[in-house]
Order: sequence, then C-alpha cells, then structure tokens
Amino acid sequence: MNFMAEALRQAKIGLKLGEVPVGAVITRDHKIISEACNLRETLKDPTAHAEIIAIRKASKILKNWRLNDCGMYVTLEPCIMCAGAILQCRISELYIGAFDPDAGACGSVINVLQNELLNHWTSIQWDCKKECSDMLKQFFKNKR
Amino acid sequence: MNFMAEALRQAKIGLKLGEVPVGAVITRDHKIISEACNLRETLKDPTAHAEIIAIRKASKILKNWRLNDCGMYVTLEPCIMCAGAILQCRISELYIGAFDPDAGACGSVINVLQNELLNHWTSIQWDCKKECSDMLKQFFKNKR
Repeated sequence: MNFMAEALRQAKIGLKLGEVPVGAVITRDHKIISEACNLRETLKDPTAHAEIIAIRKASKILKNWRLNDCGMYVTLEPCIMCAGAILQCRISELYIGAFDPDAGACGSVINVLQNELLNHWTSIQWDCKKECSDMLKQFFKNKR
Repeated sequence: MNFMAEALRQAKIGLKLGEVPVGAVITRDHKIISEACNLRETLKDPTAHAEIIAIRKASKILKNWRLNDCGMYVTLEPCIMCAGAILQCRISELYIGAFDPDAGACGSVINVLQNELLNHWTSIQWDCKKECSDMLKQFFKNKR
C-alpha cells in the first residue's frame, strides 16, 4: 500500500473542508493505525493539525502514549508543534511529502527531530511528491 | 490574583493523579480563561500536556484558534511541542515557573519562541518559584 498516497487522500478531505490541505497517516507493521487531515478551522483548535489528530487517534487505539514502533507519513513537513509531538510519542520514522520553507521543523527552518541535546532522534525520509506541494500551492493561490 | 500560584495548584492536581506535576493557566484581561494539568498518563495521550489542554480549552471557549491577546502561566518550561503550540495560537506572553534543563524549548535546550526565521515571537518572563521546581524534584525522587 502507498501510505503517502493515503496521506494525500486525507489532505484532499481537508481541502474540501476549506482547510490548509495537509494529511497524515500513522502505520505499524505495514498497516495503517490512524489517519487524519488538518482540521484547525473546522474545530477552531490551533492544535488540530493532521499529525496531532493522527497521533491522538493512534494512542487511543493502542492505549499507549508511546508509538515507538510506528511510522508517520505526512504530506507537508511538520511544524515545530507537530515535530515536538512526534518526539513526545517517539515515532521512529517520518516520511515527508513536501518541504515547508516557511515553518518546517524537520530541516527547512529548524530541525528539532535530530538534535543531539534531546533524548529522542527520529529518522526523516524525504518522499517528495509533486502532488503534495502542488495541492498546497493551488490552495494558497486561490486564497489570494 | 497570582496566576502562577493557580498554575501550581493545577500541578498539584496532576501530582495526585500520578502525573508529572505541571500546571498551566491562560489569561486574558487579567482573568483566567482556562487552566489544566498534565494528563499524559491518565488519558494515555502524548499530546495531553498541561499547556496543550489549556490552549484547546481556551480556543473552545473563545471560539477562535487565535489567542493573540492571551498570556500563559506554566510551572515548567514548555517542551518543543508545547512551545510550538504557543506559536501556533500566537499567545503573546509566557510566564515560566521553573527551568527544564533536559527538554526546555524556551531557552534551556533550544529556544523556538524567539527565532527570527519564524513568523511569531513570544515574550518570555521567567517567574521562577522554588515550589515549582521542588514539586518536580520530589516527584522524580519518589519515582526512583
């Protein structure tokens, strides 16, 4: 199964709701545990990014705040809050669909996932897809 | 009203639940909008830090994800996730009761709240109280 395509499918759900189109999928043993799209405007909740919602769902399903053996696929480079949440739940592998030059916290503006001063290190795989960045570009173009 | 004392009262609620004792209070116009303690173990939710819960509550009450005109009082220096959430909701002033030399993201390990590359800058006031750090020290001593 193509997990980034599934994350992109989530992003499209967000787009239809008028949200910044970002989707995230959490996997374990090559199966999807949880998935979500950004719902910040819909829920009027500044923490309701796709990654945070997916993490909360996965923890609820696994009845554990530790997601050590899980991976995350996300269509846009996580912000500081979401990268921090990935550190908190100890997700081991992160796959990212597009760079965020404005607020990306996995290397673009700052890299909080690979800081030797912190007690957790996350593997980052750049799995850049034109469709991920195109969807965001189109969204912001339409907003102007 | 002493808002840090109120945050400390929240931390004590967390302590009684067996949580790492951290409390947070969000204010606007010198009044408390929301308050919370860390509930990570109780809720089995890695995002359920005091700051995140307080932000979600305040946004729900104000029906807005933007908390520009709010302040936050927290008994321990926020981690990367929580500092990132403070950036997301644009809280303007943060008062911190104790340093976190292991994971503090407001100057101790990293400072994500005052980074010129990001589009929001948060004022940080260190309002260190012996009671805030003593409660945490005692908690971790009892855990060993």
